[in-house]
Amino acid sequence: MNIAIIGYGIVGSGVSEIIRENAQCIEHKACEQITVKKILDIRDFTDSPDSSLFTKNPEEIFCDPEISVVVETIGGIGVAYEYTKRALGAKKHVVTSNKELVATHGPELIELAAANQVSYLFEASVGGGIPIIHSLNQCLAANRISGVTGILNGTTNYILTQMQREGRDFNDALEGAQRKGYAESNPSDDIEGIDACRKISILSSIAYNEFVDCTDVYTEGISKISPVDIQYAEAMHSTIKLIAISKREGNRVFARVSPAIISMNHPLANVNDVFNAIVVKGDAVGETMFYGKGAGKLPTASAVVGDVVDIAKNKGSCRSLWDRKGYNNILPVGDSKTRYFVRVSIRNSVEAVKCVERIFDSIEFVKPGANELAGEIAFTTSKQSEQQLSGWVKELNESAPVKGIINIIRIEEE
Amino acid sequence: MNIAIIGYGIVGSGVSEIIRENAQCIEHKACEQITVKKILDIRDFTDSPDSSLFTKNPEEIFCDPEISVVVETIGGIGVAYEYTKRALGAKKHVVTSNKELVATHGPELIELAAANQVSYLFEASVGGGIPIIHSLNQCLAANRISGVTGILNGTTNYILTQMQREGRDFNDALEGAQRKGYAESNPSDDIEGIDACRKISILSSIAYNEFVDCTDVYTEGISKISPVDIQYAEAMHSTIKLIAISKREGNRVFARVSPAIISMNHPLANVNDVFNAIVVKGDAVGETMFYGKGAGKLPTASAVVGDVVDIAKNKGSCRSLWDRKGYNNILPVGDSKTRYFVRVSIRNSVEAVKCVERIFDSIEFVKPGANELAGEIAFTTSKQSEQQLSGWVKELNESAPVKGIINIIRIEEE
Repeated sequence: MNIAIIGYGIVGSGVSEIIRENAQCIEHKACEQITVKKILDIRDFTDSPDSSLFTKNPEEIFCDPEISVVVETIGGIGVAYEYTKRALGAKKHVVTSNKELVATHGPELIELAAANQVSYLFEASVGGGIPIIHSLNQCLAANRISGVTGILNGTTNYILTQMQREGRDFNDALEGAQRKGYAESNPSDDIEGIDACRKISILSSIAYNEFVDCTDVYTEGISKISPVDIQYAEAMHSTIKLIAISKREGNRVFARVSPAIISMNHPLANVNDVFNAIVVKGDAVGETMFYGKGAGKLPTASAVVGDVVDIAKNKGSCRSLWDRKGYNNILPVGDSKTRYFVRVSIRNSVEAVKCVERIFDSIEFVKPGANELAGEIAFTTSKQSEQQLSGWVKELNESAPVKGIINIIRIEEE
Repeated sequence: MNIAIIGYGIVGSGVSEIIRENAQCIEHKACEQITVKKILDIRDFTDSPDSSLFTKNPEEIFCDPEISVVVETIGGIGVAYEYTKRALGAKKHVVTSNKELVATHGPELIELAAANQVSYLFEASVGGGIPIIHSLNQCLAANRISGVTGILNGTTNYILTQMQREGRDFNDALEGAQRKGYAESNPSDDIEGIDACRKISILSSIAYNEFVDCTDVYTEGISKISPVDIQYAEAMHSTIKLIAISKREGNRVFARVSPAIISMNHPLANVNDVFNAIVVKGDAVGETMFYGKGAGKLPTASAVVGDVVDIAKNKGSCRSLWDRKGYNNILPVGDSKTRYFVRVSIRNSVEAVKCVERIFDSIEFVKPGANELAGEIAFTTSKQSEQQLSGWVKELNESAPVKGIINIIRIEEE
């Protein structure tokens, strides 16, 4: 089987490398030899082991009947989107790691593939090498999935792990991540939770068989997390992670990305550094968890090649569509309920405590260690709607003993 | 698509139940409706919701051209083996949860399926609902797998968790497991590690593309583990699990099932009760872990139906064979190297310590808590071959200050 790679960046070159280095085990599983016939990139790679395969002319790929699969590793929703439509229209399967494209144009591209009797596969778009998409799409097909929760972004998980282990502050840990290549020079997609949001939207669309639009999903990043927040979490036998949650609620979906305090007993608590993990709850299988490297050249390329093997092994596969609901199927975040951790800077501790007890239902005060910190108090709430909490926080912020709200972090229970 | 179920036990009835209850999401993923047309069982089930589907005549299944898939949930290697060969010979796909059959006759049945251009699928034979087999066979196909390690038996994991949490002894914990239905009345396949051995052999055969025969794999169960052993493990910030290991070593395979002391930092340390987990190491993807319910009616049935969906979605799939090597491809356990924990009953503590230090290379003494236990000493060794350790243990056992060896438990590092 001949394939073409469009976009010879980190992942694209990794795909070529794996196909070359692991040809034998790939052929054993795919039951045929897989060969890279052409590589499209606007740049020159004269020193590459693949140098003889390069072209700058996309027609050499789209018009070649010998090429049955196109690997799209360009990224973004510009030329990658155009080339994907061309390839599918030319009745070529497309395999991608492009989460932005899948999250934005997934339903249309899946339909276009089905109409041309080819596949649009994107295991590599979520969770790097972890086979989560295939598991949701096929292995767990017998289940009504009630929820998918995960740590889906390696950059932010690495930063939070550094902050926890080394006591570093956010900016310091981010710089360390950039130096190690775990964060981009413009890291905002990762830091602000946008990358995790795209991924949880893709997983939700598959899990619930209907399109979940990432632009409807409440998303909050980690830039406000401080070492003191982490100390409080540790005092609560907990840790802070960027958690992407998705749950079925009646005929709607609750989905959210935000930092959350989770107990050390939570399955995701010990997922550290650049590792990702996804917990899936199904009505037959119960709770399952998938864990592994969520990013990186070879893990991501492994997933791309796994999809290519899928196409080689399984001629004539059908692919399920993502229904587009006529209504907004996402539960507004204001209606969702959770517990919260609130840190407040204060003028007068005794008076501030009285205000908190007056305004909030059922709270517990917490300390970051043996003693309170001067000038602040902190507490956890019972389960409340976001709307209710906002109202109470506003009232607290306007009361005399309180200077301001330092931070509010959601608490996610198992 | 019409299927038949042969063997209406716990799993077989679970398969029918799931197909009925979750018909909608199954149809969405499979792109067609899946129907149970016939059920074969020698018993009567007049009160079952499936009562109209029952037959005692296997010909009604093997000779029916409308039935394309046979689910074999009889178990064992007697009639299940005969019926599987008949079904494959009649060009019907077979899906099973029967680990004993797959571990014993896997290569032959996979070949028979390939020769008849149908599939023999067995996701449910290892790890219940966890999609480990599909992941190894397809999603991770781009990797040279260097190792597969897991907790693969829910019964023994439940017992060990009870012993750890409640301080119960082995027999007491086993009785508790039997009362809860987590252990059979004859539990020896589980307790003695035979079930885990079959499962690691199946996983190894897929991972390394060659048949690993479970009868060649060293297997040791948990019946000698005591609460005192567990106390020592806890003092070492560790726990004791029944661990199935498999590693590629050159052109041979090292595979072993035995209790092992693992650090609380090991990915498998927090896998408790009836849960299973499998850690896979691949050269591209790195370390991945799969976790979930390894047994039970609905988790196992979920995996069976996942395989049926695979067949519905993927017409004309190829399935890779398990090469039978001409030589014994398993590394003898005597050649394998690991660290050990050794407990010795003694006549004279000071003299016994001197013997241990004289005989063994590089050991560390351990206590089960603040103090040693009267009448015994315990120590951990450095990494040694099993052969070397046996020699030293024999010498120690014959020395005057030593009464006997209480227990030897392997230590498995990450």
